Amino acid sequence: MNMADVAAAAGVSVGTVSRALSGNRGVSEHTRRRIRQLAEGLGYIVSPEASRLSGGRTGRVGLITPVVDTWFYSTMITGIAQELISAGVDVLLYPLVSDLQRHRFFEELPARRKVDAIVAVAFPVTEDQWHRLDAMGVHVVVAGYVVPGRPSVGVNDELAARQAVNHLLALGHRRIAMITSKDAEGYRYTPDIDRERGYRLALSEAGVPILEELIVSALWGISGGARAMDALLSLPQLPTAVFAYSDEMAFGAQQSLRRAGIRIPEDMSIIGIDDHPMAEPTDLTTVHQSVLQQGILAGQLCLELLRDQQATQQITCPTHLVVRRSTSPPGTTAQPATDVSRPKVRNVGN
Amino acid sequence: MNMADVAAAAGVSVGTVSRALSGNRGVSEHTRRRIRQLAEGLGYIVSPEASRLSGGRTGRVGLITPVVDTWFYSTMITGIAQELISAGVDVLLYPLVSDLQRHRFFEELPARRKVDAIVAVAFPVTEDQWHRLDAMGVHVVVAGYVVPGRPSVGVNDELAARQAVNHLLALGHRRIAMITSKDAEGYRYTPDIDRERGYRLALSEAGVPILEELIVSALWGISGGARAMDALLSLPQLPTAVFAYSDEMAFGAQQSLRRAGIRIPEDMSIIGIDDHPMAEPTDLTTVHQSVLQQGILAGQLCLELLRDQQATQQITCPTHLVVRRSTSPPGTTAQPATDVSRPKVRNVGN
Repeated sequence: MNMADVAAAAGVSVGTVSRALSGNRGVSEHTRRRIRQLAEGLGYIVSPEASRLSGGRTGRVGLITPVVDTWFYSTMITGIAQELISAGVDVLLYPLVSDLQRHRFFEELPARRKVDAIVAVAFPVTEDQWHRLDAMGVHVVVAGYVVPGRPSVGVNDELAARQAVNHLLALGHRRIAMITSKDAEGYRYTPDIDRERGYRLALSEAGVPILEELIVSALWGISGGARAMDALLSLPQLPTAVFAYSDEMAFGAQQSLRRAGIRIPEDMSIIGIDDHPMAEPTDLTTVHQSVLQQGILAGQLCLELLRDQQATQQITCPTHLVVRRSTSPPGTTAQPATDVSRPKVRNVGN
Repeated sequence: MNMADVAAAAGVSVGTVSRALSGNRGVSEHTRRRIRQLAEGLGYIVSPEASRLSGGRTGRVGLITPVVDTWFYSTMITGIAQELISAGVDVLLYPLVSDLQRHRFFEELPARRKVDAIVAVAFPVTEDQWHRLDAMGVHVVVAGYVVPGRPSVGVNDELAARQAVNHLLALGHRRIAMITSKDAEGYRYTPDIDRERGYRLALSEAGVPILEELIVSALWGISGGARAMDALLSLPQLPTAVFAYSDEMAFGAQQSLRRAGIRIPEDMSIIGIDDHPMAEPTDLTTVHQSVLQQGILAGQLCLELLRDQQATQQITCPTHLVVRRSTSPPGTTAQPATDVSRPKVRNVGN
């Protein structure tokens, strides 16, 4: 018995069933009552009220995440968990790595209502999954990117990319490559798409032609970054600067350049996004985002939802350029920095 | 009402109460029965049998960890969680960062028995905390270091340190420094102590005098490593090689050396422990441990305990030297590597 069965029996769309059962969207009282009765008759779960009457609050929040052991995800989880646990809410961790695990999680969720809310950590939630969660009265917060109309916390990824590319343009670069990111199934997350759009926009605004051969996609991660840079090094004409999707991809690109004997930044500038803990030790210029802060805010948003079902805030956290030694004007030797402390420069060109 | 109250009322030690309530150690049947009756009369919890009768299995395991967002911890958590969740067991995540949070966790645990077992992720569990958990019938697995007589998974940290130092000795180094690690309260975890002991043993076995000024302690982490290296650089006579407690501390040390204009490995060799994902991109020689494998094994051990209370296995995972470009004989220029793939050399000198 799933929502589609209820919809078929009621002669309405799945979306209408979802709205009727979740109780917080525009469905007439008559339709709502009819669908609920039908759903209950069919043995379907669990309006928010019914679940609260039958089992009450669980006192638990589920974190669903495609990965735990990378900097972005583990930092986000730290912020969310700290905030929830401080409020006395327990945190169930669900690393859903494979498609099978994701499918199983959403299939089994209604059978045992284990959580009051779910925080999706940079997790692509499908429309069908949203509907299921809505229908169960389980609140959902997205941490890691902003979803219009949904409680969510992220940065403006398009802006972050433009900040990175604008810095390279301001240094005088025109032949600027981008290393983009995809996952093992070729799926591109929202930030991947937004950052590539930001790259294209920044170049267009500067009147610099976009050369498709300078946009190279690779598996997310350090070795993906190295492979993408290897691909760029096989072009007949090299770029003078590379914008990497993330710092970890930039670390791999740095490794590839070092092995090829290409000096950073004298022969090639490189910039990432994140301000990963290894960006400073490796002198990587990057665009800073506070992932811990995003996690804390997502945790707070989740607590607000548990108190008051109405909150549907979207929070966009700031990003800013951090100049280190991996970028310089094209074809020049970098100035040695006299101050070794972390310089932070707010980029105004956006 | 805590275990000390029960012990006082029974006129026995806390340890005896713990053993009587946990039901798996040498206490006479008479004493056990007397203490249980007393404990129940006093409103104290929860022998394993009683808890099983009253509430049954929770189907949940708690992960307690001092930190989530570093490579070691997030990788360990990944392995443990994957294993438990595949078996249908839910994972509650408890990042216990402060002393207050740790205290509160162990105080509140008996009041609401939320988990069947706890995995302590490189978490220093005190004797009193062990007794509390035993008395509640909550299984405990330690992931990250081996505890004699307790279900636990780790590496031989003393051996790992000797593998690192033996490599430096074999290259001809005699003036070998060590960067050790401590946490913010000055507390040293078991691996810190074991790795320093391994360093001292390796030097002693080679007949190399141990110079206390070459052992520098710093806060765990990248910036701690940088500060420790700065301290070594202020000595009247520099070491020719440095063994860092972990790769992350070695990354900080590399940063400090680069800023000081000291070449790696020509002027100074450096080696860590871990084989962190950034060790290869930064060409760091290190001693490899598989943290993911340790997490998986700890998860399996936990599942075994949930099926059969008797299991008290200790598992020691192997470590091995991985030679990259950060080590060479003292005062020489390193050979350029012809093969850029990750070379793995099993160290036999232990």
